[in-house]
Amino acid sequence: MMSDLLWQKAGTRTDERIMRFLAGDDVVLDREFFLQDIAASKAHVEGLAAIGVVTAEECAALLRELDTLAADFHGGGFVLDARYEDGHSAIEARLTERLGDAGRKVHTGRSRNDQILVATRLWLKQRLAELAACCREVAAVCLRRAAGEALPLPGYTHVQRAVVSSTAMWFAGFAEAFIDDAERARQTLAWIDANPLGTAAGYGVNLPLDRELTTRVLGFARMQVSPIYAQLSRGKFEIAALDALGSALLDLRRLAWDLSLFTTAEFGFVSLPAEYTTGSSIMPNKRNPDVVELMRASYSAVAAARAEIEQLLSLPSGYQRDLQFSKGALFHGFSRGLPALALLPDLLAQLAWNPERMRAAIEPSMYATDVAIEQAAAGVPFRDAYRRAAEAAADPARTPEASLAARVSPGAAADPRLDLLRERLAALG
Amino acid sequence: MMSDLLWQKAGTRTDERIMRFLAGDDVVLDREFFLQDIAASKAHVEGLAAIGVVTAEECAALLRELDTLAADFHGGGFVLDARYEDGHSAIEARLTERLGDAGRKVHTGRSRNDQILVATRLWLKQRLAELAACCREVAAVCLRRAAGEALPLPGYTHVQRAVVSSTAMWFAGFAEAFIDDAERARQTLAWIDANPLGTAAGYGVNLPLDRELTTRVLGFARMQVSPIYAQLSRGKFEIAALDALGSALLDLRRLAWDLSLFTTAEFGFVSLPAEYTTGSSIMPNKRNPDVVELMRASYSAVAAARAEIEQLLSLPSGYQRDLQFSKGALFHGFSRGLPALALLPDLLAQLAWNPERMRAAIEPSMYATDVAIEQAAAGVPFRDAYRRAAEAAADPARTPEASLAARVSPGAAADPRLDLLRERLAALG
Amino acid sequence: MMSDLLWQKAGTRTDERIMRFLAGDDVVLDREFFLQDIAASKAHVEGLAAIGVVTAEECAALLRELDTLAADFHGGGFVLDARYEDGHSAIEARLTERLGDAGRKVHTGRSRNDQILVATRLWLKQRLAELAACCREVAAVCLRRAAGEALPLPGYTHVQRAVVSSTAMWFAGFAEAFIDDAERARQTLAWIDANPLGTAAGYGVNLPLDRELTTRVLGFARMQVSPIYAQLSRGKFEIAALDALGSALLDLRRLAWDLSLFTTAEFGFVSLPAEYTTGSSIMPNKRNPDVVELMRASYSAVAAARAEIEQLLSLPSGYQRDLQFSKGALFHGFSRGLPALALLPDLLAQLAWNPERMRAAIEPSMYATDVAIEQAAAGVPFRDAYRRAAEAAADPARTPEASLAARVSPGAAADPRLDLLRERLAALG
Amino acid sequence: MMSDLLWQKAGTRTDERIMRFLAGDDVVLDREFFLQDIAASKAHVEGLAAIGVVTAEECAALLRELDTLAADFHGGGFVLDARYEDGHSAIEARLTERLGDAGRKVHTGRSRNDQILVATRLWLKQRLAELAACCREVAAVCLRRAAGEALPLPGYTHVQRAVVSSTAMWFAGFAEAFIDDAERARQTLAWIDANPLGTAAGYGVNLPLDRELTTRVLGFARMQVSPIYAQLSRGKFEIAALDALGSALLDLRRLAWDLSLFTTAEFGFVSLPAEYTTGSSIMPNKRNPDVVELMRASYSAVAAARAEIEQLLSLPSGYQRDLQFSKGALFHGFSRGLPALALLPDLLAQLAWNPERMRAAIEPSMYATDVAIEQAAAGVPFRDAYRRAAEAAADPARTPEASLAARVSPGAAADPRLDLLRERLAALG
Repeated sequence: MMSDLLWQKAGTRTDERIMRFLAGDDVVLDREFFLQDIAASKAHVEGLAAIGVVTAEECAALLRELDTLAADFHGGGFVLDARYEDGHSAIEARLTERLGDAGRKVHTGRSRNDQILVATRLWLKQRLAELAACCREVAAVCLRRAAGEALPLPGYTHVQRAVVSSTAMWFAGFAEAFIDDAERARQTLAWIDANPLGTAAGYGVNLPLDRELTTRVLGFARMQVSPIYAQLSRGKFEIAALDALGSALLDLRRLAWDLSLFTTAEFGFVSLPAEYTTGSSIMPNKRNPDVVELMRASYSAVAAARAEIEQLLSLPSGYQRDLQFSKGALFHGFSRGLPALALLPDLLAQLAWNPERMRAAIEPSMYATDVAIEQAAAGVPFRDAYRRAAEAAADPARTPEASLAARVSPGAAADPRLDLLRERLAALG
Repeated sequence: MMSDLLWQKAGTRTDERIMRFLAGDDVVLDREFFLQDIAASKAHVEGLAAIGVVTAEECAALLRELDTLAADFHGGGFVLDARYEDGHSAIEARLTERLGDAGRKVHTGRSRNDQILVATRLWLKQRLAELAACCREVAAVCLRRAAGEALPLPGYTHVQRAVVSSTAMWFAGFAEAFIDDAERARQTLAWIDANPLGTAAGYGVNLPLDRELTTRVLGFARMQVSPIYAQLSRGKFEIAALDALGSALLDLRRLAWDLSLFTTAEFGFVSLPAEYTTGSSIMPNKRNPDVVELMRASYSAVAAARAEIEQLLSLPSGYQRDLQFSKGALFHGFSRGLPALALLPDLLAQLAWNPERMRAAIEPSMYATDVAIEQAAAGVPFRDAYRRAAEAAADPARTPEASLAARVSPGAAADPRLDLLRERLAALG
Repeated sequence: MMSDLLWQKAGTRTDERIMRFLAGDDVVLDREFFLQDIAASKAHVEGLAAIGVVTAEECAALLRELDTLAADFHGGGFVLDARYEDGHSAIEARLTERLGDAGRKVHTGRSRNDQILVATRLWLKQRLAELAACCREVAAVCLRRAAGEALPLPGYTHVQRAVVSSTAMWFAGFAEAFIDDAERARQTLAWIDANPLGTAAGYGVNLPLDRELTTRVLGFARMQVSPIYAQLSRGKFEIAALDALGSALLDLRRLAWDLSLFTTAEFGFVSLPAEYTTGSSIMPNKRNPDVVELMRASYSAVAAARAEIEQLLSLPSGYQRDLQFSKGALFHGFSRGLPALALLPDLLAQLAWNPERMRAAIEPSMYATDVAIEQAAAGVPFRDAYRRAAEAAADPARTPEASLAARVSPGAAADPRLDLLRERLAALG
Repeated sequence: MMSDLLWQKAGTRTDERIMRFLAGDDVVLDREFFLQDIAASKAHVEGLAAIGVVTAEECAALLRELDTLAADFHGGGFVLDARYEDGHSAIEARLTERLGDAGRKVHTGRSRNDQILVATRLWLKQRLAELAACCREVAAVCLRRAAGEALPLPGYTHVQRAVVSSTAMWFAGFAEAFIDDAERARQTLAWIDANPLGTAAGYGVNLPLDRELTTRVLGFARMQVSPIYAQLSRGKFEIAALDALGSALLDLRRLAWDLSLFTTAEFGFVSLPAEYTTGSSIMPNKRNPDVVELMRASYSAVAAARAEIEQLLSLPSGYQRDLQFSKGALFHGFSRGLPALALLPDLLAQLAWNPERMRAAIEPSMYATDVAIEQAAAGVPFRDAYRRAAEAAADPARTPEASLAARVSPGAAADPRLDLLRERLAALG
């Protein structure tokens, strides 16, 4: 009765279906970190040479062939596909084909378990570095624009007009947000910057592997000491990386929400550059902010990736095949999250404000807080001042500019302290 | 500073990067429901003919070309790839290429919004029917084995030996679980079985579309009435389908946990057929239950898919581009979940128990509950009986078989009421 | 070094801390379904009487005392608090205190495992019935208002003005949404309507319990047959109930988003009744739509509850203490979700539209789709019509009313088919 | 028709129901950080004095009364309950009652928005410090035991016996895990260690608030500069704290899984101290590892808390009432997570291994990897060595001790490098 399942070809034998289920899209996913796998293999070979398991000649040959393989893969001369069980076997197969016994030695003292750990670790480090770079770049653009013009903009709470704000304050807010996100990416990178290579299947091996050497060669900050912990950290480190990515994407989500509202006809505060909008298949009149919407939506892929890995981690210690599914999830989250962030600096740099619409949206009642605080500072108890403020706010002498100029609390319009933010950003440089 | 990002080729112009971001992997994903999109297009064409927007000749030609396209797609003669923006445009482009103006008419009165809704709806109906079929098949195998031998098996709570159970009880438990899952799949299918075609971009159109006709032609149980609701149901129905899938996968997760434990050397209750196990890359001695582990892990993809869609749905009414990301998530969840279930009937049919190990694991203390209840039934207050039971349990006359035979509460070993389960399963037909 | 932890009083002995950790807030949570626990205890007593484990006199006395306990609990004369381990022990303790040995007999043939299952099941049935009632009531109000005035309202996609819509279409959209939600609540109720009482600790007992009787007395639609499945369904059924609740709350979230936008100064389409808004502690000028925001936010509690239970269910079969945490999660989800829904009918009944602002927001370009389809229906190929529509839309003869009147596709303004929705709602009655 | 809802008393007027919905359990939750709110109020008063808004006498009186309030709250003389809208109003009400106009001045220049931010921030800092301390303590116990005896223990992959491991390796693995968790807690604490007080409702105020002073007085590492970002960080920082907590709880989950298996009759490797186990209500024979199961389950509360907050954060910038729900979620996550961790050091310190059962579980085939690597190191290509290893493993000269002694790769049994772990732990001290 199941024979009409699309994903199950008629006549397929059980063991073929099982093989397909086991393989999943593993070998395709492995393309993503094949170069990292090769780099780690080179380090492992150097380590084996250091303890005499491969000779100097074998070592040189292996390193040369690994470089060739990387170049072939990069150039398209080598395609990682279903001929191989996975990327790890592909490397060994290629080396054996080219170098015979020397190729067979490359797997000595390592397991697919630490091989995948180290490739993933190197991949994660690159992605976190990119994340940090993206966030710094967003922050830099925001700071630049915050230091530029400070057009009056309604400040909202509950999406209701509340007090006068400015475009400079808006940009400064997101500058600080992405500085924090850059810092978190960096913290996370430092946290996972530990070399798992040499822990084998999770219990170490009976070889004096030179783990200090591979740690140094691969540029890790430290050795991940315990083989058991190396296994326990699978999924845990991936989640931490996704957490750092998610932090930035959550800020992007809120920023995109602002732009989604600001570009409505009703608000009309912002015009997006034409290339950031698209038309409609049925409505000729529309220019839609699709890019902004997909930026807003991109957090969902990070959340999904996190959920997928988190669900796997209810396990005793030691490797289990469940963990295989963490790989695709991780790639999915980053392949959505990073490109969404990468488009942001340019979008923010080009975003055009519409000062007339913004000014028209500032109502006299928005000065009420100013009045209340003036009176309170003059000795009128705040709660009494609060009650009287509504009337006084209608004074025609009040302007958005005056309101902003009086906003002297540090961080606010008249004392934005961009210097402090610039300092933090520079320190993350 | 971002130029070294892997996913961002050097020299790429901004608008190319934006196009790529907008497109994502949409056109590739659209392959998944391209046949459904063609089927719905045929119904739409028939509807247009019924109200005179296309002539009978045009209608015949369009239907013919749509069939040809389906056949070409199925046979590989037509490849849906990046030449097209998405599957929807591909259909229109092909019809226009072949039929000129008639092809251009096919989009009259519909929007990509209802086009994708109806294709997704048809796809979901097929997947839910498959899910129901899978669950029924699992339940049937379980019932068959429950009606077969009833080998004594320790019954656990807290993974501690508690009372005597049997293989028949174990199978009956999962039979009832998957009957419920089949029923839920069917309920969900009925719940979403409503035709969104004809609701256009979410506000209807100025054409008297024959929606009753398309509803009938496409085999929907009812019309989804409100165009606004048609849009609101995007994501909502996908989540419901994933909920139904998840229900079965959560049961599979617990079943796989049982098998994971039962196949350890320590428990040793179950042997898996050889094709369900794999070897190790470093440890020649191992036969690992990888299939069972991946079955257990497969729920994570369903959870991820659900999370991804759920995160998108914090939006005002009306279509928003965010919803595009629901498509890949949905496919991911089902492409992992259904194959995991599909392997289960065969695995359960072949699973071999190890009666000696199971019997050896039954300790005298496991009769204590029996004794306590006997005494209680004989008038000794339960709490007092409970206190005295521990000693009495050691009576050598007690055997697993006797314990099971005395388990006369309906549903338990001596009165398993498989008839009730068979009835429910039959009713799900 | 831990001694300054707030939640860890200095000098606490380890075993006290363990006891506190094990107890959690269990006994307080048990208040929530104490009445259901009492009702199930009555049924169990009747069942024990039917098989002679308690005498007719004992049965009468036990039923009387259980009624008294329910009345005392309801009236405040009996407080379920930390004197008891949980609600289950409280019942037994009270009966034993009042009736001696007869009280001790009440636990014969049941376990806390099936006791908590049956109390939860009864509680879930009530909540799902309330959910269905809530959703029906929302749908009824929406249908009433959809049948009333049909004021022109901009129809949005991407929160950009797209085509003319109406308040009637908006209400009809949410009517259909909540009809579906009511149906799902009812489906779910039917799905879980199975009696677990009599399955003991998950393996049945050596007593011919009259499970048909307790099923009938407690008003269940069927018996949950397998004791093993009764345990496996813990958490699974709770998640299904939360899924049904979440479906309605996701619709509420989108509805609340609409209201959040429509009540901004920029949109200005809707005025909320004064009691649905609140003031600000610092800004005297504000009236904020806090109720609408908390309605929107309430889905989060349902998501959290679902996540909490889902995380627990990666376990082998058989009861495990982990499942205790499902209780508080379930209560949390429903205690947030149902009250948010319950406020909705009244809010929707009183919601006042601002027709001038809505009309002012309708721009000529919003007729472009109408024009394009007119031309296409007149034989101009759609893609060509589309290109020409933009200019034609500026025709001053076009009005929102005319646009709506021409929207003749079933479900749209000129043919809303409220009859179909009324029928479905009536069928759910 | 809704009048029978349990949570909706008959005859309740709409506005009372709305008030109850708005209030939720806010005032009760506010007890949790009432002391932090008082501390922040003191700093705010000092700041107001520094800029002359309150006089030195008023300042002294306000500080005194705030101290009294804290003492009364701590001692039970002041109960924060439903008489107050929330903790913030309670403080102001009390000060006004005792000091008249001076009391009314305390809210000058601050909003409930920054008031709740600063109280939450202080609370989070304390919790993260406790989390770090917990993790350090767990790591210290693990290191101590890792340096003690190294009993042979089967090392598992796929829960199948794989290679020889030891209790020392097991403890070292979790030591490194919790060192990482402690470091992450510390990183997170540093990341959120920024003072939001003085940012008012999110746009600053027209007062030269001395934010450097309050930053110093409250012990923050830096000022959170932008008022807009202060609002944007609500939820974001809470999630980061939960991420750090979750990292430790995920490790605890895997540790608890090990103990759950090791304490089964089938494994029998570990005995738990009696106070960590409980009996059964129906099975007199059982001693169940409930504490371990609840430890394992505690991650679910952290996941739920995270999900609840994450769902709220799809919002434009600026405060929205939705965020109120983040408070209860945060408290829930930490109130479950920290106590579960706090019981761990003692449990690990007392945990007793059963060396006979462990040794009996070590089979000859577990030496196969050792053999394979020996041969490979001796020049036999690994893949060939692998094939021959199975036979050779049966050599009776092989013992667990010899296998462990040969495990010379750094981190493994013969070179555990506990020194490296001790250094890292000390650096976190």
